[in-house]
Amino acid sequence: MIIYEINKDVIKYRFGNPICTDAVVKEGIEIKNNDLAFKICEEENIKLRYKMNPDDTIYGLGENQRGINKRGGIYESFCSDDPLHTPDKKSLYGAHNFLIIDGSERFGVFVDYPGKVTFDIGFTNKDFLEIYVDDCNADIYIIKGNELRDIVKNFLNIIGEGYVPPKWAFGYQQCRWSYVNSTEVEEIANNFLKHDIPCDTIYLDIDYMEDFKDFTVSKERFPNFKNFVQKMKEKGFRLIPIIDAGVKIEKNYTVYEEGIKNNFFCVDKNGAPFVAAVWPGRVHFPDFLNPDVRRWFGRKYKVLIECGIEGFWNDMNEPAIFYTDRGLKNAIEHAKKSEDENLDIYTFFSLKDSFVNLSNSINDYKSFYHRIDGEFVNHYKVHNLYGYNMTRAAAEGFEEIAPNKRFLLFSRSSYIGMHRYSGIWTGDNHSWWEHILLNIKMMPSLNMCGFLYSGADTGGFNGDANAQLIIRWSQFSLFTPLFRNHSAMGTRNQEPFSFDKDSINIIKSAINLRYALIPYIYSEYMKAIINKDMYFLPLSFIYDDNMSKKVEDQLLVGDSLMISPIYEENAQGRYVYLPEDMLLWKVDDYKNRSYQVVRKGHMYLDVSFREVPIFIRKNKMLVLGKASKNVESLDNEELYVIAFVTDKAKYIYYDDDGKSYDYKKGNYSEIFIEIEKSDKDYHIRIDNRGNEAVKKLHFEIVDINGNLVKLTKAL
Amino acid sequence: MIIYEINKDVIKYRFGNPICTDAVVKEGIEIKNNDLAFKICEEENIKLRYKMNPDDTIYGLGENQRGINKRGGIYESFCSDDPLHTPDKKSLYGAHNFLIIDGSERFGVFVDYPGKVTFDIGFTNKDFLEIYVDDCNADIYIIKGNELRDIVKNFLNIIGEGYVPPKWAFGYQQCRWSYVNSTEVEEIANNFLKHDIPCDTIYLDIDYMEDFKDFTVSKERFPNFKNFVQKMKEKGFRLIPIIDAGVKIEKNYTVYEEGIKNNFFCVDKNGAPFVAAVWPGRVHFPDFLNPDVRRWFGRKYKVLIECGIEGFWNDMNEPAIFYTDRGLKNAIEHAKKSEDENLDIYTFFSLKDSFVNLSNSINDYKSFYHRIDGEFVNHYKVHNLYGYNMTRAAAEGFEEIAPNKRFLLFSRSSYIGMHRYSGIWTGDNHSWWEHILLNIKMMPSLNMCGFLYSGADTGGFNGDANAQLIIRWSQFSLFTPLFRNHSAMGTRNQEPFSFDKDSINIIKSAINLRYALIPYIYSEYMKAIINKDMYFLPLSFIYDDNMSKKVEDQLLVGDSLMISPIYEENAQGRYVYLPEDMLLWKVDDYKNRSYQVVRKGHMYLDVSFREVPIFIRKNKMLVLGKASKNVESLDNEELYVIAFVTDKAKYIYYDDDGKSYDYKKGNYSEIFIEIEKSDKDYHIRIDNRGNEAVKKLHFEIVDINGNLVKLTKAL
Repeated sequence: MIIYEINKDVIKYRFGNPICTDAVVKEGIEIKNNDLAFKICEEENIKLRYKMNPDDTIYGLGENQRGINKRGGIYESFCSDDPLHTPDKKSLYGAHNFLIIDGSERFGVFVDYPGKVTFDIGFTNKDFLEIYVDDCNADIYIIKGNELRDIVKNFLNIIGEGYVPPKWAFGYQQCRWSYVNSTEVEEIANNFLKHDIPCDTIYLDIDYMEDFKDFTVSKERFPNFKNFVQKMKEKGFRLIPIIDAGVKIEKNYTVYEEGIKNNFFCVDKNGAPFVAAVWPGRVHFPDFLNPDVRRWFGRKYKVLIECGIEGFWNDMNEPAIFYTDRGLKNAIEHAKKSEDENLDIYTFFSLKDSFVNLSNSINDYKSFYHRIDGEFVNHYKVHNLYGYNMTRAAAEGFEEIAPNKRFLLFSRSSYIGMHRYSGIWTGDNHSWWEHILLNIKMMPSLNMCGFLYSGADTGGFNGDANAQLIIRWSQFSLFTPLFRNHSAMGTRNQEPFSFDKDSINIIKSAINLRYALIPYIYSEYMKAIINKDMYFLPLSFIYDDNMSKKVEDQLLVGDSLMISPIYEENAQGRYVYLPEDMLLWKVDDYKNRSYQVVRKGHMYLDVSFREVPIFIRKNKMLVLGKASKNVESLDNEELYVIAFVTDKAKYIYYDDDGKSYDYKKGNYSEIFIEIEKSDKDYHIRIDNRGNEAVKKLHFEIVDINGNLVKLTKAL
Repeated sequence: MIIYEINKDVIKYRFGNPICTDAVVKEGIEIKNNDLAFKICEEENIKLRYKMNPDDTIYGLGENQRGINKRGGIYESFCSDDPLHTPDKKSLYGAHNFLIIDGSERFGVFVDYPGKVTFDIGFTNKDFLEIYVDDCNADIYIIKGNELRDIVKNFLNIIGEGYVPPKWAFGYQQCRWSYVNSTEVEEIANNFLKHDIPCDTIYLDIDYMEDFKDFTVSKERFPNFKNFVQKMKEKGFRLIPIIDAGVKIEKNYTVYEEGIKNNFFCVDKNGAPFVAAVWPGRVHFPDFLNPDVRRWFGRKYKVLIECGIEGFWNDMNEPAIFYTDRGLKNAIEHAKKSEDENLDIYTFFSLKDSFVNLSNSINDYKSFYHRIDGEFVNHYKVHNLYGYNMTRAAAEGFEEIAPNKRFLLFSRSSYIGMHRYSGIWTGDNHSWWEHILLNIKMMPSLNMCGFLYSGADTGGFNGDANAQLIIRWSQFSLFTPLFRNHSAMGTRNQEPFSFDKDSINIIKSAINLRYALIPYIYSEYMKAIINKDMYFLPLSFIYDDNMSKKVEDQLLVGDSLMISPIYEENAQGRYVYLPEDMLLWKVDDYKNRSYQVVRKGHMYLDVSFREVPIFIRKNKMLVLGKASKNVESLDNEELYVIAFVTDKAKYIYYDDDGKSYDYKKGNYSEIFIEIEKSDKDYHIRIDNRGNEAVKKLHFEIVDINGNLVKLTKAL
């Protein structure tokens, strides 16, 4: 083991000779002794063991099941295409090996290893946290910090600045597997316009392609695609096509032919291109771990970008494998042997399983290879880097194709490091109330691992949603940076206009509220990116009282807000814990505002189906705009500042061009707002540093007694 | 449609000429007009439509997903062997077609139809309750009553008195698929003894049989079974074997031979015995809808009863079908045709589905027949009667084999009416925290449908449990009449002694509490049976304030208690709503008692892992005994009466022989206890009507100010 000091807060323990993942962007210097907080057992594999105190809380692990507090579960980092997110699933699509132990000791751990890592967090024995790395080569980072949030910041600092999408990607987005042709897409758009529901994008799922071939567009279903993209943009909608990892094996299909010619595909043990089957049947997988392959694949996006496309979602990049010829052959042989047999429990389930387990089998993952620095590396060892590097290929391609232009990009599979290139969505969830709660709990954990541009399929992908589920889920998702409604083929339609009139109006109100909140959401998002900070936080990351640690179903959103979403069917209220006095705004129509001071402690809060409760923290403020049909048409000349001031509140309102990366060079504006309460009045100080868009600020300031003062300041 | 008045509270609407289910035990007289509360659309099938008001609550439907309030879901009554109880499942193992509409109108509905019935309770359109009967022949009952509980009582009154198990069946029970031989069974028993954990029964799952043949015992694994049963009984444990619905096709196997000889099996369309495959491979299904078959099958239990067996569980009686030859042949043909094909999304999933969907296919259910009154009736039309009548066969058999002796009996599949013959367990759940909550919500719904002896597989059947899950689940299940820990083959051991020492002690405390509560639990259970009442009630069935309607995670247990189980991982507290002032006893060790008066309203309640909070309602009392190694060794000469008295409290303590049905003839004892508060003192009146066991009552009486008075009365 070699020890490196990355900086004063981060120590790296290098075991063996690990494969470089590029997750961490900072180098360190070798140092002598430094005690690792874990007991290590390092024989064939690396095993770390930590004795937890009864009240220790474990945060992190990004995209995973269970609570904000991860204690009690076993988790396996092994990116998995599993569409049934039941509570016992150990792996979802991402591998996010960062966690924080918060107890008598407080520190972060990042296991930088691209194959399988297991975290047994008090499952086998309630008192022990055990980490198994399926290898003897890995980097383990220990991250220090006084407060939980400091530890996260110190971690985000070493993994590099997060992805920023174009501003329009903060609008409402509509998806479906699939809107299969231009007529259907246009119909969806017209429905949004007809119902006056804001929407920025419409998604193209796999059926827009010709036979599921990447970088093709079906001429039959989307004749004159470029014109259609332009036409839709004029209506106010951007189209977002999907790109899959597997490249169809088909003579004369350019991507296939080029990949073969250049040896760009992963290979089997004989060095021949590895064959797996996904949507189009047999495919090859580009070897994204090779920079040349990334460069090649990244440039392929150009054909769609030239049609006016400005955003993509990368899918099936765990990579998902429906079957391989080997697996299918075995299953079919098994079936043939079972013919006319009297199958009992053992033989029947064995036959059934040989078909059920065809997909995403470990044997298949172990049967292909990447070329890394000239050497063949078994896929199984680097599995978690695949989707990451597919998405990196896209991002690097965009940079080359259209330098300094932001694209919308998010991926299903991910590994820490990928957060610099794109967002993620949380995959193929279900229309279950339980999945709203999972969505809530997952958001801060994802933020801890660098993934800020994220959200779930609102309303649930699989299964049928009822109106109330769409209402309550939208009322939460309106706070997530990625706010997309998506559902699977064969399920009930769940676009906002698919329900009864009442419900349509409620969903519309929620989406309108989202657009009115974009000034705040975007400002908070960008500050979190620039300051290496979180956008969603558990209460305990700010408040250090004991009860705040226990709250799993309320979140802090940016610096000013706390939310308490409803995630239970038929509920018209819920319990809320307030770690301090706050100002409650129950939003029905965001234009009608009334506020109530709610006191520190526990409360039962009535929440009708129409209402979204927003809590403004003490001495904090919310900047609110006005809704519009899409982000580009937002008119934010006049903003509303809703403040709860008992003493002094400060806010920095951030904005930028929303399109380029110029913010990285300091090209952004800030309005510093300070409200100080004096005896009877408020002193307001505004320092506008470069914002030319905002002309007026309308203040609505409430004091501890609930007295509201309204006043307006020109800028 | 013909209308019958069953009694002043119940009207029957007869559509067509329905098959008799024997669910209802009372006849009515034909009457003229009587308006049905529903809009009817009666063409090929029966469709009932009811417009719900926004705040109408719908209770009932027994074994089903979602809340105590069933609004928002679609439910299909079609008994299903589906081991994955995700929130979207429309059918579980039972068909319980009774519901109550509670709003501007208040009444119950029972759809007495033994095939598929669909309840769309505001799923498709939030404002409409729609019931589809897959036939034009059915009886629809409308049940009136002032209060919700009255409606249930009026319903229970027409469906007949519920099943009563022997008293020892209220002890803790241990199951596993499977304790495969006598050595393993004995080891489990010894572990209970060694750890001094009470337990009454150990279960024998399918592996005790010889090749999964009903009414056989493997001579290899259980040599000298009769002696072994006796030996275990002497150790304090009763063995409970499983019986499956399917009879193995095997020459010279008596049950098979007799069934063939007498035409006792269901037949295919050609009149030949219908062949399906389950555990043993190919089986026939006894035609339990035929009384002769029931008589024959019921008598078969004798072979095990003669070995000393006093309890059974009937399983796989939906009936579960792994496959049929037809289905398997088709799937294999499909596989053969797929050989060497390049399968894409459509062809691949079609192949996979042909294996995945082999089990429990509707086509199979439609391909066999019963003989009812000499006529062939397609199974699909009477599907929901199958498990019911298998279990009825057993119960009727017991009566013949050992008249007036109570047996433990519960079934997986059920239909209303079966509650007269046995209990049910809630089937193959998972080791998910969500399934504790489902368990909580399901109990009162089952009670509404007559199923009082019921409980879930504590700790979860499928999947791996951690210690905390077993702790929290046991802390709830200790209140359910059937309290059984059960888990599947291949999952982690979850017997109480399978965990760390701390956890073992906590689970042991919970089980001890169960045994100390048996005087109360048994008394309340029996009174509920005799009075046609519920044992578990939603708060709203007693309290009519608006908040009580919303509470989905607290229950009333009998007449005196309210419970608020913990069902979230790592939670050491929860919110509780108190509809009135109550007395809180947080039980760690039931022998250490301290009480706290908690006030009406909302509270956050700390609940450590060791604690079981029990709330004693105002002017109610709890009768408590002492734990022991099993029910038979309970020493309840001295009982403790814990009372919360602000005015006057009354309690009737019921007891009987625990073994026979003599209670039906009035042979039971009652102790009437009345505690009246005067200025400084309490007046206690005790009227002992026939109880010879109890010698002393130790009173612990708390007033509204928390003052505790202890005193003892001899009987």
